[in-house]
Amino acid sequence: MTDSLQPVLNHLASRQPQIEAWLKTFLRIPSVSADPAYASSMDEARRFLCERLRAEGLQQVQLLDGGGEPAVYGEWMGAPGRPTLLIYGHYDVQPADPIELWHTPPFEPTQDGDRLYARGTSDVKGSTTIALEVVFAYLATLRACPVNIKVFIEGEEETGSPTLRPLIQRYQDLLAADAVLSADGGRASATTPTINTGARGNAALEVKLRTASKDLHSGRYGGGVRNALHEMATLLASLHAEDGSVAVPGFHNGAEIPTPRQRQDTAAFPYDEAAFFTDVAGTSHGEPGYSPRERITLRPALDVNGMWGGYTGVGVKTIIPCEAQAKLTVRIVEGQDPEQVIQSVLTHLQSRCPAGCTLDVVASNSGSPAATLAPDHPLVTAAETVLQAPGGPKPIHVRLGASVPITSVFKDMLGIDTLMFGFNLPDEDVHAPNEFFRLSSITQGLRAWTQMLDALGHCEPTAFHPR
Amino acid sequence: MTDSLQPVLNHLASRQPQIEAWLKTFLRIPSVSADPAYASSMDEARRFLCERLRAEGLQQVQLLDGGGEPAVYGEWMGAPGRPTLLIYGHYDVQPADPIELWHTPPFEPTQDGDRLYARGTSDVKGSTTIALEVVFAYLATLRACPVNIKVFIEGEEETGSPTLRPLIQRYQDLLAADAVLSADGGRASATTPTINTGARGNAALEVKLRTASKDLHSGRYGGGVRNALHEMATLLASLHAEDGSVAVPGFHNGAEIPTPRQRQDTAAFPYDEAAFFTDVAGTSHGEPGYSPRERITLRPALDVNGMWGGYTGVGVKTIIPCEAQAKLTVRIVEGQDPEQVIQSVLTHLQSRCPAGCTLDVVASNSGSPAATLAPDHPLVTAAETVLQAPGGPKPIHVRLGASVPITSVFKDMLGIDTLMFGFNLPDEDVHAPNEFFRLSSITQGLRAWTQMLDALGHCEPTAFHPR
Repeated sequence: MTDSLQPVLNHLASRQPQIEAWLKTFLRIPSVSADPAYASSMDEARRFLCERLRAEGLQQVQLLDGGGEPAVYGEWMGAPGRPTLLIYGHYDVQPADPIELWHTPPFEPTQDGDRLYARGTSDVKGSTTIALEVVFAYLATLRACPVNIKVFIEGEEETGSPTLRPLIQRYQDLLAADAVLSADGGRASATTPTINTGARGNAALEVKLRTASKDLHSGRYGGGVRNALHEMATLLASLHAEDGSVAVPGFHNGAEIPTPRQRQDTAAFPYDEAAFFTDVAGTSHGEPGYSPRERITLRPALDVNGMWGGYTGVGVKTIIPCEAQAKLTVRIVEGQDPEQVIQSVLTHLQSRCPAGCTLDVVASNSGSPAATLAPDHPLVTAAETVLQAPGGPKPIHVRLGASVPITSVFKDMLGIDTLMFGFNLPDEDVHAPNEFFRLSSITQGLRAWTQMLDALGHCEPTAFHPR
Repeated sequence: MTDSLQPVLNHLASRQPQIEAWLKTFLRIPSVSADPAYASSMDEARRFLCERLRAEGLQQVQLLDGGGEPAVYGEWMGAPGRPTLLIYGHYDVQPADPIELWHTPPFEPTQDGDRLYARGTSDVKGSTTIALEVVFAYLATLRACPVNIKVFIEGEEETGSPTLRPLIQRYQDLLAADAVLSADGGRASATTPTINTGARGNAALEVKLRTASKDLHSGRYGGGVRNALHEMATLLASLHAEDGSVAVPGFHNGAEIPTPRQRQDTAAFPYDEAAFFTDVAGTSHGEPGYSPRERITLRPALDVNGMWGGYTGVGVKTIIPCEAQAKLTVRIVEGQDPEQVIQSVLTHLQSRCPAGCTLDVVASNSGSPAATLAPDHPLVTAAETVLQAPGGPKPIHVRLGASVPITSVFKDMLGIDTLMFGFNLPDEDVHAPNEFFRLSSITQGLRAWTQMLDALGHCEPTAFHPR
C-alpha cells in the first residue's frame, strides 16, 4: 500500500460517525422508483446528492435526463494523463412491501449491533456512500484523486434501467471514461475475498389473462365456464418441468455451457450449501446436472414474482374470476438474448392459452444480457492486489446470480468494462423485508475503495482497453 | 284468484314509489358481512329492519343471536289453525370489490330505466323487500294475513351462514313453522315461469403455501429454490383435467347421477345456450357427457375464487415469493357431503405439496349439502297455481346451480321444507360489479307473493309434512 494513502485513511476513520449519519439521512428518503407515488422522494434524493457533490468540490454537478428518472452526475478531472474512472451507484430502492413483515420502519434506519436496517441500506445506498466518501476524502486531504473521477448515480436500477440507454446516448461525451467501478454488485462472502467477474442478465414480462367480460357467480356458472385463475395456474405450471428446469421451448437458445474454469471457480468458493437453504427455510430445487451454486450463477432461471386474480379480501366470495395477472422475470447467461428469451416465454404462454381466452402483455422489459469481465483485465488484477490481505486467502473469482444492467450497457455504449465492487453481503435481505447493511462493511469498504483508486491510478489508461 | 285480495293488491300498487324509496334506503346501508370493517353497517341494517317490523305491527320483534351476525325476527300469529310460514330473507350483501369496475357507486342506488343498480339489490334486498311489503299490505288492508307469519332475516348468508345452526338451535321453539318461503333463490327466466325445486350445496377452503421463511432475491436464488407461486400454480392446475372435469380423487363420492326427470326438466327449460356464454364473453368448458345447463345445475363444480402471492404492485420486483394463498369453493349435488368434499380437495393438495413446502388451511367452511323439494310438495303445487298465468306457459321445475344453505339447515333442524321464491333474474350480476334489480320484478313479485300467501292459507298445516 502506498504510504501517501495514510492521511486519506485516517481522515475516513475519524469521519466514520458523520459518514453513518449522512447515510441514515439518505436512507430516510423513500426513493422507490417502481411506484409513481414516490416521485417527490425521488426528487428529494437527487437534490440531496447534488448538494453534497457540490459541497465537496465536484464540478459539472447536474441531473442527466434520459426521459425517465434522471441520474445524478458530478466530476473531478484534475489528473491529466491518468485513467478516468466512472463511479457507478444508484439512489433508487425497491418497494418496501410487504410492509407488515418489517420489524422496524423501512425508511427509518435502525441500528442493532453491527446491523443498520432500512430499505436500500444494502442495495445500494450503503456502498454508494462508501464510494462517494472515498472520493471526498481524497479531495479533502490530498486535494486530488489518483484518477479522474466521474460520479454517475442512477435512479432506475430497481426498475430495470428503462431509460439508461437513451440517457447515455445523450451524454455520451460527458460520460466518456476508461472503466467503471461500480458500488453495486456485492461481496459473495464475508470471510473469503471475492472478485465479481460477471453477472446474469435479466428481463421482465407481465401478462393478463381474461376468460370472460366480468367475474361470474360460481353458483350460476360453476362447472360450465373457464376460470381465469384455473387457466393462469395451468399456464404458469407449464413453465417448469417437475425437476425444476425451465420447460419453455427456445428458452435456453444460445446459452453458453459453463466453462471448466467457471465450474472450478464456483467449486472453489467456500459455500455452505446446506446453510444457504436452511437459513431461509428454502428447498434446493432446480436444473439437474448442476450444483445449486452453479444453478444460481451459471445457469438461466425463470420466476413468477407475483400473481393475482379474483377475490383476495377477508372471507369468502363465490366468484369465477374473469381475469388473472402474473409478473415474471428471467435471469439469463452469456449467449442469451433477453428479448428472444422473453419472446420464448410469451410464445409458450400464448400457444397454450385456450381458445376463447385472451392473454395480453401488460408490460415487457427486455432488460440486459449477461456481463463477463476477462480474468486478466486490469480492473480484476487491481482488485486482486487490493483484496489480498497479508497472509490472507487469495481472492477468488465469482459470478453474480443477480443482474447489473449497467455493465452491459456501459460496454455497449461507452466501450468500457465494469468491475462490481460493492460491499454488501448475500444475507442482507435485499428486495425483501428487514433489509440491512453491516457497519463493519463500511469500514472495510472505505479502506478498499481508497486503495482501489490508488491502484487504478498506477495503470495506463490504454490498459483498460485490451485489443 | 280470491277477490278478497284486490284491496291488498291495490294498496301495494299505490304504494310502489314508497316501496322503492324504502328499498333504496336499505341499499344505502353497506351491510357487507364478509368484512369486519362493515360491522357498524351490519348493526345499522338490523336497526333499520327492526324499526320497520315494529312500525307495521309485527310482534316479538328482536335480534336472534347465534354467536355471529344476529338475524332479525318478527311475527304475526293471528291465524290460528292456519299454516305458519317462515319468511326468509337476508340483509347482508357481498363485498363490492373490485370497486373500480362499478359504473355507479355500489352503495348509492342508481336507477336507469327499469334497472336499479346497487350492491345487494338483486341479492337479495329487493326480493326481501317484496316479501315484507306483502305482509305489511295484508295487515294494513285486511288487518290479517292468510297464514301465520314468522319473518326471519339472516345476516350471514353471504359468508356461508356459519352460525345459522347454533342460532336455530337456540331459538328452535320461536322458529317452529310448517314451511319456509324464501325471498332468496331467484327466477331462472324472465319469460317462462319456473319453480325452484332444489339447489346445489357448497363449501369453502382457503389455503396458504410456504416455500421459504421470506421472499428471496431472484438474482441470489433464482434457479435454485422452490417458488411459492410456481408450486401453488402447479397444485391448482392439478385440480381439473384438461376437459374441465374435476380431477380430485374422492371429490364425486356419493354424488347422485341426474335422474331422467331432472334431465327432462333441464332440457325443457327455454335456455339460449349460445347467449348464456356470449353475454359474458365466456367459454363453455366442463365435464364431458353433460349439457352446459346440466353441468351448472345437476353436477358438482370446484372453483378457485381468488389467488395471490408475491409482488402485485406497480412495476417490477425481482423476488421469489415465499408464500401463495388461494380461496376455493365447491358446488355440490344430492348425495355429497360438504365436509368430505372439502377434505378430498385438501387431501389432494397436501398429497401433492412437495417436500420442504408447507400447505396450511387458513379457513374452511363446510357449508351445506344440496337441497331438493319433492315435485308434489304443497309449496310446489301452490307456486304452480300462482305462476300459471291465464293462457300462459305452464311453470316448469328448475334446479338452482347456486346454494341456499338455509334450505338444508331448516330441513335438518326444523323439519320443514323451503320454496325459493325470489324474483331476481340470472343476468343481474349478483356477486359482481354493477349488480342490479328490475323495478318490474318488484311489481310482479308483490302480486305473486300476495297470491302465494293466499294459496298457502288454503292448505292444511299437515299437508306440509308429508309422511
